[in-house]
Order: sequence, then structure tokens, then C-alpha cells
Amino acid sequence: MIILAIDTSNRPLSVAVLQDTQLLATVTFNYRQKDHSTTLLPLIADLLKQVDLQPSQIDRIVVAQGPGSYTGLRIGVTAAKTLAFVLKKELVGVSSLAVLAAPVQPENDETVIVPMFDARRECVFAGIYQQKNEGLVSLLADQHLALTKLIAVLKKYSKIILVGQDAILFNQQIQENVHAEVVLANKVFDYPQAYQLGLLGRITNPVGIHDFVPHYLRLTQAEKYWLDHHQEKLNEPLVEKF
Amino acid sequence: MIILAIDTSNRPLSVAVLQDTQLLATVTFNYRQKDHSTTLLPLIADLLKQVDLQPSQIDRIVVAQGPGSYTGLRIGVTAAKTLAFVLKKELVGVSSLAVLAAPVQPENDETVIVPMFDARRECVFAGIYQQKNEGLVSLLADQHLALTKLIAVLKKYSKIILVGQDAILFNQQIQENVHAEVVLANKVFDYPQAYQLGLLGRITNPVGIHDFVPHYLRLTQAEKYWLDHHQEKLNEPLVEKF
Repeated sequence: MIILAIDTSNRPLSVAVLQDTQLLATVTFNYRQKDHSTTLLPLIADLLKQVDLQPSQIDRIVVAQGPGSYTGLRIGVTAAKTLAFVLKKELVGVSSLAVLAAPVQPENDETVIVPMFDARRECVFAGIYQQKNEGLVSLLADQHLALTKLIAVLKKYSKIILVGQDAILFNQQIQENVHAEVVLANKVFDYPQAYQLGLLGRITNPVGIHDFVPHYLRLTQAEKYWLDHHQEKLNEPLVEKF
Repeated sequence: MIILAIDTSNRPLSVAVLQDTQLLATVTFNYRQKDHSTTLLPLIADLLKQVDLQPSQIDRIVVAQGPGSYTGLRIGVTAAKTLAFVLKKELVGVSSLAVLAAPVQPENDETVIVPMFDARRECVFAGIYQQKNEGLVSLLADQHLALTKLIAVLKKYSKIILVGQDAILFNQQIQENVHAEVVLANKVFDYPQAYQLGLLGRITNPVGIHDFVPHYLRLTQAEKYWLDHHQEKLNEPLVEKF
């Protein structure tokens, strides 16, 4: 199975081509000035060319589904949906936080892995994971939450590994407020790797292309404004409507 | 410090550009048909262009010094030496096996990490490493050795993690013959990552450009033939002479 994996959910842009579990090629940019919207498609075209594949030879497109930046997520998910639709290929979404957590493999399966992205205003996008025999298991679903709330949840664990390039921003505050041994994962795990995304997407069930939406996990300012002024419509999801 | 990291020591070709410990961009190819000699320089040029850097802005060139394939090592080391010489930049060599071992971080610092490459004829290139507080420590120097000899050395450890895309070839034989718990590292560590190479090279002392040679760690067939027929010259190093 030829897999194309795309992660543009945060500042790093990572694309990989896999043949089953084997890596054929991967590129990761983490450069501030890069614009995912202009970079992504030429990069995919170039990568496929480098490994002598035609787009039609791809069997499955795997995309990091969020959480992450609104713009980044829209670019990756739109490109993935469009490619899957035009090429008539399988589409799979994988949590952007799971992609960060997956390469971290504590020996002790009680250790929890906490991938995180800065969400500004003392909030984070985070999840809590463990590596079990059956693979990566989610203990706390990916969510947008206040750092203080994450710390409250983390108090019940004794060993915690924080992952992601933003983790260093919260490391000290977490260390000082939980009753656990807290370590930062190896620097090499700071950035999501599309190869890891492809490996996770390989063992995940495909989704319906048209119903597929990013997991923003928080409201945009526009949605917040709209809801503040339309309390009576609170139960109608807005993102899916448009 | 801007770092250019190059690993062509085995089939994967990996190049990265770092700013201190931060990744700017990286590319890894693991495609059988890729020819490192024609691919490497255009790839470096393209990567620098993508991150808006001129070659003159590089401060340090880090290259995977071996062990690995003769041809691969010569291409990477020659390119790195030439760039360092022409651009008047620092040159650093890092063990290709250390690059594989470094991202693996057991919680128990007694666990040994064994990065390995298939060297054919029941032999491997391997080293034995541990992660200590001060970083990656070598317990057995990188070497070319018979698998049976590696197994004999591994008998004194109780927990072993094998790393590298060739490790799966030897996993079973090692499992059956040592008295330890043996596990394969996560699939995502199968391939050397130039970003990891750059991180290691950042904290390694630069070397003299002209004296720098790859660590082949075994004789070529030609050297072996020559030595078989010139027993009296055994103490004269051949590679350095040419």
C-alpha cells in the first residue's frame, strides 16, 4: 500500500510517502516564513517525482486532523480531501497530538505521554496517552483546556513525559504543580513526523471524504461572537454547517 | 549557529538544516533507486533555498562518518569536506550508529541500545550505547563483527533495544541466544534522521578538514587482497596512503 501522509496542522509542515510500513521519502519544514498554502502541493508533487510514483499510484491519503492552527488545518485537510476525491483514494484522519506522542516509548507502560501545543492565553491543546502492548492508547481525549486544568488532571500520574516544541513553555509550571516525575521528551520528537503519521494512518479506518472535518477543538473568534449573540442556537454545530 | 547535517552512510539519504537546536528543514529519502551521488548536492541547494539561506551562512557542517557503505560514506564525507573547505566552515563527524541510537530513550538507564547495520556474511556493524544523564554513552565502540560475537557481548545485559531497519533481520537470533529482554525500537527510528545528526554534531568538537576520513571499520576487498599478498606491510595503513 502506497501512503501519502500530510501534516500542516501547526507551524511545521511534514509530508511523507510510505510503502506499507517502509519510508520512501519525507520532508519536514519548520521555517517561520514558509506558507503552507503555497508550499504544500509543489512539495507533494516533488516528493512523488523523487520516488518515481504517479499520484494515481497512491492508495491512501493520511492527514493530521488537528488540533492545531485553523489555517494550517484547513490547508492540510482540504488538500487531502481534494486529492482523495479526485484520485478516488482512501482518506484517513489521525490526531495531530497522537502523531507527537507515538514515537515516545516509555519502558514502563504506566508512564503517561502528554503531547501539547500552545493555544495562547494560558491554554493548551493536549491529550494524555500511554503506550500499551496494543499500541498507543488515549487516556484523556485531545482537547483545548486551561493549563491549570491539565495540571489538575495530571496530578494522578506518577511519571509524565511532555512532548512537542511548545512543551518547554509549560514544563516548569507543570513540574512545580504535579506530584510526579516530569521529563521533556527527546528534542528529536519536538516536531511531528509525517512518517509517524503515515504509520498510524495505515492502521486506522478510512473515513467518508465529504463528511470529514478538521478537529479544531475550539471555537474561532467569529463562532464565539456568533454564539454569544445567538444563545438560542447553542446546540447547532456551526462549523459543519458551512 | 546554522548547521547543515548530511547522512549518506547507508541507503537512506538524510539532510537537515538546523538553527542551534531548532529544526529548519529536513529531507530523508529511503528509495532504492536514489543515487546519493547525483541527489545530494541538488538536495542541499534546494533545502537551503527553501529556508532562505545562502551556503555562506552555514556555520558548521556535520556528517555521518560511518560505519556504512563505502560508496555512501565517500559521497557524504567528500561533499561535507569540500563544502567545509570551500566555505571555510567547521566540520564535525558523528558516528552513523550513534545517530540511530540517540533518539531511543529508555527510562531505565541500565537498558542498552544496540544500533546495527547488516554487513552481510553473518556480520553486522554495531555499537552498544546507554542514555545517561550526560547524554549518549558508548559502552562498546562501533565495530564490524560477527553476529555471534555481538551476541556473546550482549549476554551480560538484561534489557536490550535493537535499532535500525536491519535489526529485524537479527532480532530472532539475538532473542534466542541472550539472557535478556530484547525489543525492537519503534519503527520510526528505523532510519537515521539528519536532524538528530545535527543535534549530536552541535555538541561535538570540530575536526581538521584534511585529515578527516570515514570510519569504514572494515577492509575493502581490494585492501584485503593487498594485505593477503603483502603480509610484511601489515602495519602500514592503506586507506590513508591514497
